[in-house]
This record gives sequence, C-alpha cells and structure tokens, in this order.
Amino acid sequence: MSRTVIIGGVAGGMSTATRLRRNDEAMEIVVVESSGYVSFANCGLPYYIGGKIAERSALLLQTPQSLKARFNLDVRVGTTATSINRAEKTVTLNGPEGEYTLSYDHLVLSPGARPFTPPIPGIETALSLRTIEDTDRIMERIDKSAAQSAAIIGGGFIGLELAENLTRRGITTTVIERAPHIMGPLDAEMAAIVSRHLQENGVIIKVNTEVTAIGDGYVTANGENITADIVVAALGVQPASELARDAGLDVNERGGIIVDAAQHTSDPAIFAVGDATTKRDAITGELILVPLAQTANRHGRLVADVIAGRDAESLPVLGTAIIGLFGLTAASTGWNERRARAAGKDLRILHIHPAHHAGYYPGATTIHLKLVIDAETDQILGAQAVGTDGIDKRIDVIATAMRAGMAASDLADLELAYAPQFGSAKDPINMAGFVADNLFYGERNVQWHEIDQMLEDGWTLVDVRTAGEYSRGNIPGATNIPVDDLRSRVSELFGKKVLVHCQVGLRGHIACTLLTNLGIECANLDGGYLTWSHGQLT
Amino acid sequence: MSRTVIIGGVAGGMSTATRLRRNDEAMEIVVVESSGYVSFANCGLPYYIGGKIAERSALLLQTPQSLKARFNLDVRVGTTATSINRAEKTVTLNGPEGEYTLSYDHLVLSPGARPFTPPIPGIETALSLRTIEDTDRIMERIDKSAAQSAAIIGGGFIGLELAENLTRRGITTTVIERAPHIMGPLDAEMAAIVSRHLQENGVIIKVNTEVTAIGDGYVTANGENITADIVVAALGVQPASELARDAGLDVNERGGIIVDAAQHTSDPAIFAVGDATTKRDAITGELILVPLAQTANRHGRLVADVIAGRDAESLPVLGTAIIGLFGLTAASTGWNERRARAAGKDLRILHIHPAHHAGYYPGATTIHLKLVIDAETDQILGAQAVGTDGIDKRIDVIATAMRAGMAASDLADLELAYAPQFGSAKDPINMAGFVADNLFYGERNVQWHEIDQMLEDGWTLVDVRTAGEYSRGNIPGATNIPVDDLRSRVSELFGKKVLVHCQVGLRGHIACTLLTNLGIECANLDGGYLTWSHGQLT
Repeated sequence: MSRTVIIGGVAGGMSTATRLRRNDEAMEIVVVESSGYVSFANCGLPYYIGGKIAERSALLLQTPQSLKARFNLDVRVGTTATSINRAEKTVTLNGPEGEYTLSYDHLVLSPGARPFTPPIPGIETALSLRTIEDTDRIMERIDKSAAQSAAIIGGGFIGLELAENLTRRGITTTVIERAPHIMGPLDAEMAAIVSRHLQENGVIIKVNTEVTAIGDGYVTANGENITADIVVAALGVQPASELARDAGLDVNERGGIIVDAAQHTSDPAIFAVGDATTKRDAITGELILVPLAQTANRHGRLVADVIAGRDAESLPVLGTAIIGLFGLTAASTGWNERRARAAGKDLRILHIHPAHHAGYYPGATTIHLKLVIDAETDQILGAQAVGTDGIDKRIDVIATAMRAGMAASDLADLELAYAPQFGSAKDPINMAGFVADNLFYGERNVQWHEIDQMLEDGWTLVDVRTAGEYSRGNIPGATNIPVDDLRSRVSELFGKKVLVHCQVGLRGHIACTLLTNLGIECANLDGGYLTWSHGQLT
Repeated sequence: MSRTVIIGGVAGGMSTATRLRRNDEAMEIVVVESSGYVSFANCGLPYYIGGKIAERSALLLQTPQSLKARFNLDVRVGTTATSINRAEKTVTLNGPEGEYTLSYDHLVLSPGARPFTPPIPGIETALSLRTIEDTDRIMERIDKSAAQSAAIIGGGFIGLELAENLTRRGITTTVIERAPHIMGPLDAEMAAIVSRHLQENGVIIKVNTEVTAIGDGYVTANGENITADIVVAALGVQPASELARDAGLDVNERGGIIVDAAQHTSDPAIFAVGDATTKRDAITGELILVPLAQTANRHGRLVADVIAGRDAESLPVLGTAIIGLFGLTAASTGWNERRARAAGKDLRILHIHPAHHAGYYPGATTIHLKLVIDAETDQILGAQAVGTDGIDKRIDVIATAMRAGMAASDLADLELAYAPQFGSAKDPINMAGFVADNLFYGERNVQWHEIDQMLEDGWTLVDVRTAGEYSRGNIPGATNIPVDDLRSRVSELFGKKVLVHCQVGLRGHIACTLLTNLGIECANLDGGYLTWSHGQLT
C-alpha cells in the first residue's frame, strides 16, 4: 500500500488529500498541520473579528474527525515537519507524540505562507492575521485592552479588511502604507476611489509613510510616535518554504518553491502547491508568487490527479482578486498599468464609468472600470473595477475572456444577460469593448496625468459638458462648449489642436469624432472629468 | 452627399444612426419610426406598469430634438415606410406630412418584431406589450376598469415580467401557457423552480392549457370560461418584415429577413438588423430568430461601420437571456437539453446547487445551475441558472466561455474573483467544471427522470445523506446509508449495482468514487434529491 504524506492541511493540502482519496481508496493519506486546525476559513477571519461572522465555529469547516469519517484521512494537527530525507523518502515530524519519522511514496508540500516581517524593531510584538490562533490573539487583545485604537501596518487586502472590521467594532483604525497608495494591485487613480471611501467611513490612511519601530504603537520615519491599543503587521506574506529549501529543493529568489506545470518540485517524488510555490504569470510565463486560496485549491486537486496517474497540467495565473470595504467593491485581474509600463509594453489604457444596470431602472450605481491593453496585439493585459454593484461580475467576465485569449475589442461582442435590473443592452463590458475597438482603429485618448503637458504643448482644452456641469467643477484651463452646441460653434476651434473632455468620456468621444471628421486634430480625455478628479486624489 | 435612410428608431436602428454620424459627419441620416417614440426603454415597460419605474418620462431615452442636437439626425416619428423601390433606390413614407418618397444610398431596415397573434377568435381585443403606446393602453385599462384580475396568455419573458408587475399592483394575475411549462428557454425541472416561486407570490399558472377564445376574459380548450378585467396576449413575437418581403428581399420561412455576416440583405444597398432579421446560431450556424436588444444594438453598430467601409462581420448568437421575478432570477445561454436532444446530440448533463458565496459568510443563497454538454467534444452547448443572487454573473461567465470555445471542463480552471462575500474559493463555475471533468473521465451520473427505469433494471437506490435528512423526505425506494458510514457498511452493497444520491450531488460523488474504487458498479443521481424534487414539480 502506498503512502502519501501531505504537509499543510488548509486549502491546497486538503484539496489534494480529499481528491486523492476519491481517486484511490487504498492509499494511506497522512495530513500534517502545524496549527491546531485544518480546513479553516482563512478568508473569513477578518469578518469574525468584525462580528459579521458571529460564531467562531463557522470558521472551522472540517475537523480531523470529520475528515477521518468521510475520507479516511489520517490528519495530525499541532504537528510540524522538521526535515525531509529525500534519499530514504522519509519526513521527520514533531507533534504531540514527540518526534518521529514517516516514510512516503509521495510527499506533497502545502506549507502556505507566513506574514512578511521586515527588520523593523519590535515587529515581533505586532499581531498578524493568518491563522485561527492569530485571530484568537487579536480578539483577546481587543477584549483585554478594551481597545479604542488600532494601527495596521500595510494597506493590502488583509490589512484593509481588518481595518473595516475593527472600525465596525468602534475602534479608531489607522492604516500605514509605505507606498504612495494603498491597494497595490490597483493603479493610483483607481485606488484613490477606495481610499476616499475608507476615509469617509472613518479609517485613517497614511501613505508614503515608513514605520521604523513598533511597540505600544508605532514610530514613523518622519518622526511621528503614535500609541495604539492594537498594532497589526499586514505587510504581505512570504513562502513558508524552509523545509523545502533545507531539503535541497529548488526555490526562487523570493523563497517560492519552484514547480513545473504538474506541480513537481525538483524532486519527482515531491510535489508542492499553494502560497509557498511559484506560479507562472499568465502574460509572460515568468515565475511569480500569487497567494490565493482558489489557486491553491485547483493545484491541490491537480496534484492528486497527477499522483493517480493522470497527465494534467496547471495553467498560468492571472491573480484575480477582490475586496469589499464598507459596501464598496474593488477587484482586479491580470496586470495593472504600473506593471505593464515597467515591462516596457506599448499600451492602450481606457477608463469608463457606466451604470451597473440600465439607468432608467431605479438603483443604478456607477462602475469605474479600467482596462490595460497591449497596443501591439490588442491583448487584454489586465482590468480593474471599483464600485458598489456588479464589480465581481465584470472582473470575472474579463478574467474569463483573458484566459481564453480574447482581444480587448472582442469584449464588444460578448453576449451578456440583459434585463434592466441586471445590466444594460450595452453592458459595461461591451462598452469597454467599444472603446477598445475605437482606440484600435486610431481614436486618440489622453490620460488624466497628461493634460498639463498637452496644455504646455499648445492644445486647447474643451469641456463639452453642459454649462451646469461645468459650473459645478472643471479642469483648470478648460473652455466650455457643450457637445450639442459644437456644430454651431466649431469655427472657434478651426486650426487648433483640441483636447476635449466630458464627464465620463462618452460625449467626449462623440465630440472628438465630430471634430476629427471636420479636419480638426482632436484627442479625448480618457474617463473624462471623473477619472481626472480621481487622479487629483492621488 | 450620400443619404442613409433607417427604418425603425429603437435599438438597432438608432445604434446604426448614431454610430453612422460618428463615422461620417457629412452624410444625411434619416430615421423613420412608425410609433411616436424613438429610443425608448422597451425592456423597462413592465416595470413602469408595476410602478418600479415611477416616471413615464424615464422610459423615453431620446427625442427627435435631442438626436438632432447631438447627432444631426433627421428623425421622423409617426411615419411608416410603405414600399421600397429597389431599382430606383427610393422608399415611400407615410407620415404626418402625408405620403412621399425619399431616395437613399443605403437603406437600413430595423423594423423590429410585433406580437405573434395566432388565429384565436377575439385576439384582436387582447392587449399586448411592445411599445410605449401599448403601455399607455394597459395603464389606461387598469385605471378605467379599476382592474382586479388579469389574464396573460403566454408564459414567456414578457408575459411573466408583466405578471409580476400586475401582481405587485394588487391585480390577481393568471398566466396561461400552452406548453407543459412556462419559461421556454429553460428545461422543465429548472422552470419548475421559477413556477413554484411565482405561485408562492400569488401568480396563478395554468400550463398545458390552450386558449380558444378571447373576450372579457378567455375560454380554454378544456372548457373553462374565465372573466378577467385585462387580457394580454404575450405569445412571442414575429418579424415585422412585410416591407422587406414586399420589396422582394429574401426572408426565411418564419419571416426573418435573411442577412449575411455584414448584415446585408439580398440587396447589397439594403441592410437589416434587429428582431426582424435572422441570426446565426452559435452552435450550428443555422439561421434563427433571437429577438434581443443587445444583439440589435451590436448589429446596428456594425452596419454603420460596414457602410463607412470597414470590413466587419457579426458573430453567431447564443441568445443569452435573463429574467427577475419577485426576487428570483433565472437566466440561460445557448441551448437547453430539450433542444440538444432534438438535435440528436449525445449529451452529458449536470446540475449543481452550490451557495452563491462562501457558506460560512452570512447570507449565502443557493444557485441552481445546469449545464448541457456535448459528450463527444466536451463543448458547452448551454447553461441555465436559477436562484436569488449571483445568477447573472455565472451565466455571463459561461456565455463568455462559450463564445471563446472553451470546453466544459475548462470551467474548472477559470480564475474568478474570490472573497467570502462574492463567491467561493471553488466558485460554482469551478464546481461545474469539476463535475464536467469527472464526467469526462467516465464518472456516471443519472438524471432525475431515469430513476424509475433503473430501479426496474435492478439497481439499488442508496440515499447517502444523514438519517435526519432522509427522515425529512426521501425518494421512494431509497435505502439510507450516510456517506460517513459507507466504509463500515459497504458489505451490504457488494454484488449490487448501486445508484447513490445525496442532497445536491457532492456527497453522492464521494460515495460513488468510494464504491467504484471498491469494485462496485455505481452511478450518482445528478443534482441529488434537490433536482429530483424539482423534477417532481413538473
């Protein structure tokens, strides 16, 4: 009888174990988990802290007992793997029974990641949020200190989810981010929408702020010394790959266990999945680290199939991710503009702001959608969306289109479900496709941060919104000629290079086609006044 | 200066007109609309009747004046095109100014569809719901008769949306459907969920019921003679293609104007778009009629580009559609099982019932999702989904995957946005892909309507749910062996052919892999007790 030993009993490891049992009733399957819990809802932890998930037991999806009953798994919690002897195919474990070795036919490493801890003095005193035990510690600290204030170091997903949930508990919460903006997966002008919403809901956000010491609060590089009842370090994660590295398995420079498409490590008897392993980037194929539960699950299932003899291969990853914060949703897939620029790509960028369903049906809210497109191929490199409703749907559709290799202008022709409660006859996705198609055919758009340079270069900025819209706020230097007056006032623009803008870009597009057709050089401000105003928040 | 005349000023026609202006500032563009309104929100009409859309003006998206100002369009409402002289390239119009002819360089037909009116005595007295004028008539009838009761003949989308909205106004509403079930795009067991929900909300539904006369109510083939204050015929639509047919343009046997992929009719100077035209089916390429606003819009845009000289082609259609009824949503894309069986395809069918987001996060509701798969190729032929939340998202993702030509098992690997409020680490879409993958690799499932035959053929039906679930309702003939007891009780099953089922199919899958691995012939009831119980409603 063959034996598979799996190190790590949460997403990836447990997906391997349960699938393996379904593939093979006879195999001995041992799952080793260093914490006291397997298959817990790690993405739910912040919501338990905030009280949205009322019962701690709701976080515990399986127990060693339930897994024994259903899948005949031998689950050993509170047990750490301390070394691998690859030559003898054994692993040394340290658990409640003491230290012992176990032989394996196949070994699957799913150790996950641990909080990244840069060398900040006192960082070992900061709390983190990754496990049930971490959660218990945060809850205990809140109760014991009757916490009034919290400092979260790091403005990524976990930090922000925790900020929302601590705020909901009435705790004044500050998020401190070293980078110029929170929400790294988004570009600055998209993250600005999220940042404003957090601030409107009482979260204090400090960007461009380096924490230099942690204790009963934190000290920053610009000399602030602020006390806080709770300090949480949420600076991202790093692969928990010491066991693999010590066993001589290949790891990359960031510590990710290198695997092939069948999730083999450099030792064919040892597989690895989950946050500790490298994935292949969907755009370039290069090795990257993407710590997402869904990827861990899929790769876990795949390893079980490979062990069972199936010829299976994992796919490159887009890194689709989403966050909900005080009723606002932000999501992204693929690359952001920053990353695409860093890769030296020639890009087309578009921002649109359509309603999430037909405007004539009550309750329509605005979707802010950005697309990053390879100008050479029309390939969709990435998308970002922020809004109240329908954000997950649009990003999921784009992630599916990207996986399928569709071009940006192909989005124009997707046949999406339309009734006025659910979308528009021209869905935001189709609208993005129409804009992409217009850009593909040579229409010129301009980004919010390019206006100043264009004005210097002699362009005339024309606001084609109504006089009322213009009077409520406008871009410095803009002349107001409403789009519906443009034909009668076009003589004012002959001989000029005209940069037009409207509120969201649609009337600007209409104005620009008109001017271009009349022989006037024209460009349209992408995303209109709205994207420009988001840019001003950065 | 060239002139384009467009017949029909709603979705398709108006999309052509506005795009054409953006493509060409000099062209003369005349839009002829027989009703008094252009660009109105036809999908919103039922919701105005029900009061959800409070203001009639919200339905009127554009006026001839606004279209003149923005797009320099010559819009002529209340004007009917009575004939086309193709040799002279003129069209005869009859409007407020009397009859006159207009020459054209390009003619675009977007006449839409009109209610289908089978030869039922009195059908001319029934109301219908297609235009603003129809809506005004229904509202007037409701007010004048202080309507207490309504009969809607036809259980399709418009009939059901109207039934919801009349019911919301306190009018007792009966839907009479000739076919065995309402919601033709769905299969019987999926439509049953919708039907039950409508009945729970007070709508009376009569299926297998033929209306033989209409007057102050309706008479049925089985002799019922029921009065109703309002009678609405909602029996589907037929192409309003008389003008095209009279002009000698090719139409198919159902009256659809035949067009090529560039939307040319059989006369190269005449284009057609929208509900009056044929589309190509996405599965077979055959000519079909699919009256959907989104398709009309897309094809209208395309015609404008073709007229402007672009080499553009329309894509085949899936017919993605969605409806919301009393908080329940039903949607579909592609073929249903009925249609696929009629086409003689060898099929794999799957039903799943996952939560719309992580079960541990409060507020999860059930998605009922069905996939119809070509057994030979693993191609997704169609999908149907019914539930409270997240239905539109899943159907949109599948419609996108279908457009991209993805296989059913490819759904397993889609990278969808996951946080516990929005989905699951294994999203319903991924789950459908996992099941499809299992079926692809030979796992056998059985449909709800096949149980009786299998019991006759000597299969043993085993319910692997808990004793508590079993006691609350079970399938006749089933023995209860909870999945977690299966290993210890497997001796009871040796030598038997075992049909297992659980509540939704997941534990059944686990049980079936266990039994199969132990050498016991096994099949799993697709969709479990839940799909079986939906089947019992049919």
